Order: sequence, then structure tokens, then C-alpha cells
Amino acid sequence: MSKEALVIFTPSGKRGRFAVGTPILTAARQLGVDLDSVCGGRGICSKCQISPGYGDFAKHGVTVDDDALTPWNSVEERYKSKRGMAPGRRLGCQACVMGDVVVDVPPESQVHKQVIRKSATQRDIVMDPATRSYLVEVAEPDMHEPTGDFERLTQALAAQWQIVTPITTLPVLRRLQPALRKGNWSVTVVVNQGNHDAAPRILDVFPGYREGGLYGLAIDLGSTTIAAHLCSLEDGSVLASSGLMNPQIRFGEDLMSRVSYAMMNPGGDVEMTRAVRTSINDLAKSIAEEAKIDPKSIFEVVFVMNPVMHHLLMGIDPVELGQAPFALATSGSMTLNASELDLTSIHDSARVYVLPCIAGHVGADCAAVALSEEPSKSKDMVLIVDVGTNAELLLGNETRVLACSSPTGPAFEGAQISSGQRAAPGAIERVEIDPVTKEPRFRVIGSDLWNTDPGFDAATSASGITGICGSGIIEAVAEMRMAGLVDQAGLIGGPDQTGTTRCEAEGRTHSYILHDGSAEGGPKISVTQGDIRAIQLAKAALYAGAKLLMDEMGVETVDRVTLAGAFGAHISPKHAMVLGMIPDVLLEKVTSAGNAAGTGARIALCSRAARTAIEATVQQIHKVETAIEPRFQEHFVNASAIPNALDTFPELSRIVTLPNVSFNTSGSGGGRRRRG
Amino acid sequence: MSKEALVIFTPSGKRGRFAVGTPILTAARQLGVDLDSVCGGRGICSKCQISPGYGDFAKHGVTVDDDALTPWNSVEERYKSKRGMAPGRRLGCQACVMGDVVVDVPPESQVHKQVIRKSATQRDIVMDPATRSYLVEVAEPDMHEPTGDFERLTQALAAQWQIVTPITTLPVLRRLQPALRKGNWSVTVVVNQGNHDAAPRILDVFPGYREGGLYGLAIDLGSTTIAAHLCSLEDGSVLASSGLMNPQIRFGEDLMSRVSYAMMNPGGDVEMTRAVRTSINDLAKSIAEEAKIDPKSIFEVVFVMNPVMHHLLMGIDPVELGQAPFALATSGSMTLNASELDLTSIHDSARVYVLPCIAGHVGADCAAVALSEEPSKSKDMVLIVDVGTNAELLLGNETRVLACSSPTGPAFEGAQISSGQRAAPGAIERVEIDPVTKEPRFRVIGSDLWNTDPGFDAATSASGITGICGSGIIEAVAEMRMAGLVDQAGLIGGPDQTGTTRCEAEGRTHSYILHDGSAEGGPKISVTQGDIRAIQLAKAALYAGAKLLMDEMGVETVDRVTLAGAFGAHISPKHAMVLGMIPDVLLEKVTSAGNAAGTGARIALCSRAARTAIEATVQQIHKVETAIEPRFQEHFVNASAIPNALDTFPELSRIVTLPNVSFNTSGSGGGRRRRG
Repeated sequence: MSKEALVIFTPSGKRGRFAVGTPILTAARQLGVDLDSVCGGRGICSKCQISPGYGDFAKHGVTVDDDALTPWNSVEERYKSKRGMAPGRRLGCQACVMGDVVVDVPPESQVHKQVIRKSATQRDIVMDPATRSYLVEVAEPDMHEPTGDFERLTQALAAQWQIVTPITTLPVLRRLQPALRKGNWSVTVVVNQGNHDAAPRILDVFPGYREGGLYGLAIDLGSTTIAAHLCSLEDGSVLASSGLMNPQIRFGEDLMSRVSYAMMNPGGDVEMTRAVRTSINDLAKSIAEEAKIDPKSIFEVVFVMNPVMHHLLMGIDPVELGQAPFALATSGSMTLNASELDLTSIHDSARVYVLPCIAGHVGADCAAVALSEEPSKSKDMVLIVDVGTNAELLLGNETRVLACSSPTGPAFEGAQISSGQRAAPGAIERVEIDPVTKEPRFRVIGSDLWNTDPGFDAATSASGITGICGSGIIEAVAEMRMAGLVDQAGLIGGPDQTGTTRCEAEGRTHSYILHDGSAEGGPKISVTQGDIRAIQLAKAALYAGAKLLMDEMGVETVDRVTLAGAFGAHISPKHAMVLGMIPDVLLEKVTSAGNAAGTGARIALCSRAARTAIEATVQQIHKVETAIEPRFQEHFVNASAIPNALDTFPELSRIVTLPNVSFNTSGSGGGRRRRG
Repeated sequence: MSKEALVIFTPSGKRGRFAVGTPILTAARQLGVDLDSVCGGRGICSKCQISPGYGDFAKHGVTVDDDALTPWNSVEERYKSKRGMAPGRRLGCQACVMGDVVVDVPPESQVHKQVIRKSATQRDIVMDPATRSYLVEVAEPDMHEPTGDFERLTQALAAQWQIVTPITTLPVLRRLQPALRKGNWSVTVVVNQGNHDAAPRILDVFPGYREGGLYGLAIDLGSTTIAAHLCSLEDGSVLASSGLMNPQIRFGEDLMSRVSYAMMNPGGDVEMTRAVRTSINDLAKSIAEEAKIDPKSIFEVVFVMNPVMHHLLMGIDPVELGQAPFALATSGSMTLNASELDLTSIHDSARVYVLPCIAGHVGADCAAVALSEEPSKSKDMVLIVDVGTNAELLLGNETRVLACSSPTGPAFEGAQISSGQRAAPGAIERVEIDPVTKEPRFRVIGSDLWNTDPGFDAATSASGITGICGSGIIEAVAEMRMAGLVDQAGLIGGPDQTGTTRCEAEGRTHSYILHDGSAEGGPKISVTQGDIRAIQLAKAALYAGAKLLMDEMGVETVDRVTLAGAFGAHISPKHAMVLGMIPDVLLEKVTSAGNAAGTGARIALCSRAARTAIEATVQQIHKVETAIEPRFQEHFVNASAIPNALDTFPELSRIVTLPNVSFNTSGSGGGRRRRG
């Protein structure tokens, strides 16, 4: 028997005895230690870097001699001189066991690295992407034993990487023969192994060893905004995030008006499908340009979106989603070729994964929020509100999770607001109104200064002050209520009632002037009575949805609230509560999850296990249909005041004082004050 | 326990006891009896017709009473009055067991009908198509238990037809919701279940019950000719057969000139790919029109072709096939979407199956010949010659099969022949030359009359006499040899040497005038010295390939010869042997298999089992490479005479007498006779 030595891996603690001369990479593989390698131990990819420890390891019961591994060799030296390597590191495929040794696998050498760290919940996501690269040595053709180059590649993948019976596309077959010859029968193969027991797919083949260059897009396809993260499929890092307006807005601002457009105009759904696919192509190109990568190295796209956007992206007429029983054409997750969606700007064999939908009004975006926020793992009762043109709500804990959607309309995204705009530099995002002077101060996106701070004009000269975004309008309305400029019913008082000329008459109602830039040729930014009404409707829909879920769950209160959405991170919890968007809860129990749907999409992009998990989870989520529930209407009507009722909001009354005012605006040009 | 009765099925002999009241269809399914049904027993499709027998069945040991089945019912009456039904027939789904009964399943009610009857070998092919229709009842959507329509369809397919986890395409998903509603939750689903352990695919969905309408194309994509059969996927019948010239001819007449074109012209392969795909689309449209079916009801296409055509169809540069080691990009069978080949004229979700290639010069067409002719099941040593621009040869028996290809050029298809044309009405296809008068007579395609018969002019007035096709030129050259107009070396004698003015001088050589229509404005159809040379080269290549295989096999003679090819059916065995195309063999042992490659394609279209079989068979076929084998050149040079040598063709000398002539054509305008 040949001489053996003990190899102990940290941090896993896995250990085993191996014949002297065994490479550390081989030992790791045999023990199931998570040590990365793309080149399969050929000293090319350097993914298998390890840190051997020397000296006395009392904890492990071994002493490691200086010569426990074979000496630093020329392969390691060449790699170090060309690419650099941290001191103390060795290549696991080059260093071989000579005596007992303790080997640490640093995080960056693990395949299953933890990469998406969620600050809110401190939950880490482990890299387990569907798409990976493999270096393969392929046998040369033999005229006397004829086989195809693809068949020999297949044999090599099975022998060298245990990837069996892969399939591929014609464009890849077209590139295969030149790649094999240029790479002298060594090629880097990009393989996609989704779940669903599907055959592995070869997405591309490159001559020789190809470093990196595997990217994915996580896309949250909202009714108003399309938001995308460009991620590395190797370490999950976000290279760029970008967004643009959904071009379908011209066919209808909210979902139901788009369904109507499809019903009223033959071919209307096809038109909307074409528009959104074109935009996604453009977005992919621009985000790749921003990150300075080739869009053709985007090999995977994960989509999350509501059911109407889902059907319109897939080219399915959404008409059934506009009427009970709101039947989806398909509710399950989908895996398809990007080319089926005409996504031609990315890799020609790229794959698409679409998260499952929960119900006809509760889509893959809500599933993505559930994947990101994991209400089914919460000990306390959590309400998750994903604010958008259609709001998704999840309520539950580890026992039971409910979901519904609520048609808030696009007001929260700055649309249908007189001075509204999407969140971009120049948009007012924070507002405060002095309750005594009734004078506002505000901040715009792109600067941390208030408009009353010195230097504000210089800091915002590039963008100007262009409008008000979703979080800005929420704060403005809430501040107007706190300053006594708006009464509980939502009416803006006139100058005589409020004591400020900023409240000026506009027809039979009043507007509050936030900023008047007209003297400098800029816009006059006001909050109109119509804006207040739009926000009231939106917040009432949101609140009614939450109440409906609480009814169904049989609870009077929730323990915590998570605000999510493309602009969820920017909503001030205090203002949201003043407005009555969310049920009464301790202010410190209101947290922001940012774009949780987008985070869920990123998680699904990086982790096959997460895909499997969410596909199972959506089966457990019970869905409540708001559209046919009479209590939803009831809650909706009751929720239109600002706030709903102070006596049912005890927590709120500890935070803010709401002036007891009531305005009446009959007659043109002004109004009479009436005591409430 | 409920009362039971014995049910015996013929012709299978399967029997079992069933509770009284069990439908015959149910009993058949439980016993594994092959009884068709599309509607799953709902009395709609009438595919499950059976013939109950009454009286004493001593052989089976039962006596069948008149009331052994439930009475003729209203469903059967309705079907009979609407569609008709043979006397004595019952619907298996309606007739239920009441007492012991003997039930015959007529051939047309069997799923696995025998349909492709090969006259040459009397082998029958059993229907086992990859694409079939199923009537499915789908559960309606329930708002309170939301699932997608596709998911409910999937559940129904699993429950009603044991088809599990099917996948589908976006166009089908688009049609699903309207079809379900129009069909009142009953739909006919077209499912493709290929082999390769792939998931079943839903290719289309139609409201309610859809009768028939499943077609497939079997395409033999030759270098010169594209031949297609349009087949019913239900009974395998051929509705139409059609062909057109391969448009790639303009890039090069033979395979190697097309490979050269691809090498010399950047993008040349893409140009050729586009041309052939366009033609296949056109062919699909025209063949559907001929059969009066919608081309969109073509759900499957099977392709067979040589490796260069294979790569050019797939969009793979064929450059590697032009040089040793002649590596194929892929040699295995392929299953793909028709849309990947831009076959947009047929069904949008149609599937394509491509037979495996055997080697770099021996393609899927040769595999198809092997599937059709089954040399590996032959007891005696058979040589199969598939004549085309590239000839494929198979030699073997149940012990061993060898294959090679031989570059015959397009002469056998009428190309490169001065008066040559493809086989079409007006082409001379049969030729006889009187050895005394040296006068020819001939027949043209489209008429059974010889040109010397009364009524010939009237019968051919529509087509005229336009040229000479492949089988015609073979007969013409062989007859010229037998009539002493051509010597063993292949030289045409002058008028003074042959004693006929039909041999006229043409430069330094002579031509034999077969037909001179110039007085009526028609063509003058001659066999020139150049034509003889082209045929000599082609037949020498064919013969050399056969000899090479015989060398490799270690045999001096073969037991039988099968002539195949698009025009293989039309070649006269006698003339082929006079010409020296094939080795010497008893004349009655030379048979024609017609377009065996096309037949193989039809078999693969109708039978999944055949696909599995040929994929295994090609692994067993040993391939001999002609291009690098010195003996091939040697055989080729030796085979250029007509015939090769009478003393090595003892069988031939029993059939024909070949005049011992030898011509020499030196000097212009004539030649001197020289005794041989």
C-alpha cells in the first residue's frame, strides 16, 4: 500500500486520508469539499486557490510540516507572475499531498459562494447558477472510427464533468468545429443546467480557456417601469442597474386599461408585446454598454412581473385576466429560449427563466417578493407591501401566508400626478412643510441638500427641478395634512382657510405650490386637488387590500410591515402611516426591502435551489381575490380619509399631531371654512 | 363480487375476465390490446370500432350469446347515420360486456396498423408515429384555487392519457385559452413524443374534437434533387410525392464544388443554406396544394441527406467535410423545431427529425437506405447501391455491414449530359437499338408507347420529346455498346465504322442521334462522346466503390444487388450490368428498391421504433473511406471500360452478346476502323 496522509479542509471540517502525491483538488472532490474549478485541474483557471496552514493544529490533532505539500511549481509561478496571487495561496490542482495537512478554502474559491447579502434580513444567498463554464479536452476525429465533433464533445463532458446527454442549438453547432480547431481540441463550454429534469444545454463553445464573461439579467417588468440588474453569473455581483419606462404606457396607464386596449383593438396585444420586447432589447443593450460588457455575453434572463405583463411579454392575449375567474394561460414557472421572446440583443442561445405566478391577479413579481422576503419563514405576522401601479401584498408567518393584489394605479410611481415624473435626477423626492409658516422645503434626486441649504442651486443646476416622483408626492400629501393644509377628507384649503398664498385657487378647488420655477423658465410644481384624490384612491386600495388579508387571517394588527417596490426603499414609513397607506404598527417595525421583486429575480438568477424553492412555495400561498370581494369595496370606501381614523391608529397618534381641520370648496375661486 | 364475463380479443388472442358492464375499450386497454381511440371513449372519434363474433367458438372454448354485449345504442346510431359504419361493427367504447364474448379488432382500428408495405421485401411497417391527437376534457378555472389553463390541461393529459409533464411553445399557449373556451373545455391536443427521453410536446390545441389533419413530410434532400413524400401521420398513406431541383446547383453541381464554394466565398455556406431552406418551404407549400391540405397541418418533417447537404441545411459550414479526416460537426440523429430551419410554411410548432449520419462521406441518406433495406438482416450477401450525384453503397449480411460513398457526379441524374434533363414528362427513359439496322426506338416519360408505335405522337404532343433522363442515358449507352456503336473503351464509331449515318461527326469525335426534332422546332437529342465519358466516370466510381467494399469484406462475388435511388426504380438491371455499373450477378438477383432513402425517411416518419432501431444500427455499420483509399483509384481506373471485362462477368455473357469492336478517332471529322 502506498503511503497516505491526512488532509483536513477548513472551514468545512471535512477530512480524509489520501495517497501521497494526490492533488488537493482531487482530495477536495473526493470528500465533496466545495472547491471551484473551471479548467478541471489543468492549472489554467486558478479558481481552486487554497491556503495551506502550517504548524501545530491542536484543534484538529495534527502538526503540519513545511513540506506537507509538494513545492511551489512553475505552473503556479507562471500564473502568479501573469495574474497575481495573494501570499500563502497555492493552486489546489498543483499542490499535492506529501504529509498531514490543513487546507483552508477561502470564500472566493468556493463554487457555492455566499453573495447576495440582504441587509434587511441578513440572509445570504449561495451561488448555484444554472449557467456555468467548463474547460473540456476533446478527442480528435479519427477517420477510421468516424464520430461527429459534437458527439466527442459530449463524451468529454460526461467523462470530465459528469454532464451527460447535453443538447445544443444550431448556432452553437455552427461555431463548434472552428472553436475546436482554433483551441487545439480544448474548448470552454458554457452549459445551462436548469431544474425541471431538463437536459443540460450547451449555450456556447469558445476556443481554449475563456475567463469569465458569463452574465445574466434580472428583470422586474412593471406596468410603469422596467427595472433590470446586470449580474455576474460567477459571483452574483451587480455590475449595473438600469430602468426605463414601460412603452406600453401609451396603450393604457394601468393594467386593466391595457387589457381593454387588447379587447378593443384587434392585434392590440401583439402591438403591446412587440413594444415591450423591443424595450427589453434596448435595455439589455444599454445596461451592457453601461457595464462595458458585450451584450452577447448575457446568457440568462430571469423575469418577474404581474400576470398581465407576463402574458403580454409571452405574446398571450391578456383578455381572460380582465374578467372573472381571471384564468392565467399558464401559472407555472417557464423556461424558454430568449429567441422565443425576440431578445436578439443578447446571446443567441440565451435562456429565460420566468418565476411562477400565484394567481390571475398575483403574479411572478409577488412570487419574487416572497422569494426575497420569505414571509413563510417569519416567526411574527409580517405584512409585505410591494408598491407599484398594481400593488402586491403578502401577509403571514411560518404557519400561513396570504397574498392579494390591489389596483393602486400609477399615482405612487408619479404618473397621473399633475407635476409627477418617474424617479430621476431633478425629481422632488423628500418634502417637509413647516406647520407654522406653511412654507415647504424639499430635496431632489441627485443631491443630498435641501433646497433651503446653501449650494443647492449649484448642486442641482445640471438636472434642474423638474417634477415630483412617487415618494415625493407621498411625503408632500402627508406633510400637507400634518400642516393643516389638507383636511381629513382630503380637501386642500384656500388661502383664507390655511393662511398661506401657496394655496391658490384652481377652478373650484385649490392647489399648493411646492416650487415655482416659472420666473427662470422652469416648471411650477404644485400639488393639486386631483393629485390628492389620486393618492387617496391609491392608498385606499393599498390599505383595503391589507385589511382584507388581515380579515382572512383573522388578525386585528400586524407585527411588522415591509415596504417594497421599485421605489419602496424611498418611502418614508412615517409619511406612509400619516397617509394611511399601511395599517398602524410601531414605526420602528416598518422597514424597507427596496426592490424586493428585483432582488427575488436576482436570487433566482444566481440559484437553482431558489427556483425550486419558490416553485414549491407559491403552491402554499393562499390567494385572496380582491376584485370580487365585497369587503374590499367596503374597506376601500372606509380608507379614503387621511388617515383612516386616528382612534384606530393609536401608534400614529404617538408620532404625529394631525390638525383638526375641515375644508369645503363650493363656489368658484375659493372656499368657506367650516369647523369639523 | 359483481358478475364477470370472459372477453377474448382476436387476432391477438388476449383474454381476461371483466365485470359485467365494462366497455370493450376499457377491457382492451387493461389487457394491452391494440385498439385505437382519440376521444378516450366518448363516442366521438369512432376509432375503436370492433367486430363482435356470435355463436360457438370451439377454438376459444366459448359460446357467445346474442346478448353478450349491451344493445346498439344512440351514440352508435348517431355516428352510423352521420358517418357510416360497416355492418356488424360496434363502437368499443359503447358496447359493454354482458356475457362471454369474442371480439375482433379489425386492422383499421389498431393504433399500430401495418401500413408501409414494401413490395420488394414484403416487410410491413407498423404505425408508431411520434405525433398523435388526443381529445381531452379540461377542468374549468376556479378563482378560489387558481391554476393556469395550461396546468389544468397538463393534469387532464396525465389523468386521461398518461402523458406527463408535457412542454409547449408560446404560439400554442397563445391559442390555448380561446380553444378551451370555444370547445367548452374539451380540446383536441396534438402531442409529439419523440424518443431520446425528451418531454412530450404539445404542438397544437384545437377546440372540441378534431378529426384527422395530421401530416408529415419525408424529405430526401439530394445534391441534385429534393424529393418529398407527404404522408398521413394516422395511417402512413402517401397523399402526394413531389420533387424539385436543389437550388444549390448554381453554386456547384457536385458536393465538393459546393464545399469549395463555401471555402472560397465568405458567407457562401450561409447563401446555400438560405437557398435550400427556401426551396423546402416552397416544396412543402406546393405538395400540400397538390394534396389539397393546409400546409399548416404538417406537424413533422423527417430529413435524410448526405453529410454536405446535412450541414448546409443545418447552417453549418461544410468545410471540414472537404478534407481528411472528414469530421462531421455532429453525427447523431437530431430532433429540432422546424422554425430553427426557417421552415415557416408548415405548422409553427412542427418538429424535425434527422436520421443519423454514418460518417463524413456516408450520410443520413445511407442510414435511411439501411433502414429501408435492412442489409443487417439479410441472410445472403447483398450489395445495395443508392444511385445519385453521390452514390451510397452498403454491402453485407446479418454478420457484418460495410458502407461507403462514391462521387459519381450528377450524370446519372441527367445533369452534365448534353441532352440530359431530370426525370419529367417528355424525357426519354427507355431506349432500344436494333443491332442490325442501328435504328433506335424509345419511350418518354408520360406515355407507355414506343416512338415507333401508332399514336405515339398524339400521346406525347403535350410534353413533346425534350431530352434524356438518367435511366434513359444508361440504356442508351448500354444499347449503343450492344449494337456495336461504342467499343469497349467507350469510343463512338464514325458512320463508316458503324454503317449508320446516325453516328455523325462532332469535332474529333462522334455523336449518335437518338431523335432529331429540329424540323418541327424541337431539340436534336444525341448521345455525344462527352456523354459517354461522363457515364463511364460515374459508373466506374460506382463499380470501384462496390469492389472496395467487396475487398474489405473478403468476397469475390455478391449474392444479390439492390438498385436504389430517386430514379433507382427506373434503371434496367440488364443495362446496368452491360454498362458495368454493378458487379456481375444473376440477372434475377438484381432488384430495384425505388427511392429507398425516401422510403427510409417515410418509415422514420411513421415509426418511433424505427428511429431507435436505425440509431443503433448505424453504430454497427463499418464505414470505408473511398477518398483516401489507393485501391479505390486502382479499381476506378480498371472499371472505365464497358463492360469492365467480359471474362470477369460470366453471368453477363449469358445474357448479352457484346460485339468485339474497337474504334479510334484520330483526325478530325471521322475515324479509322481498327479490328480489336
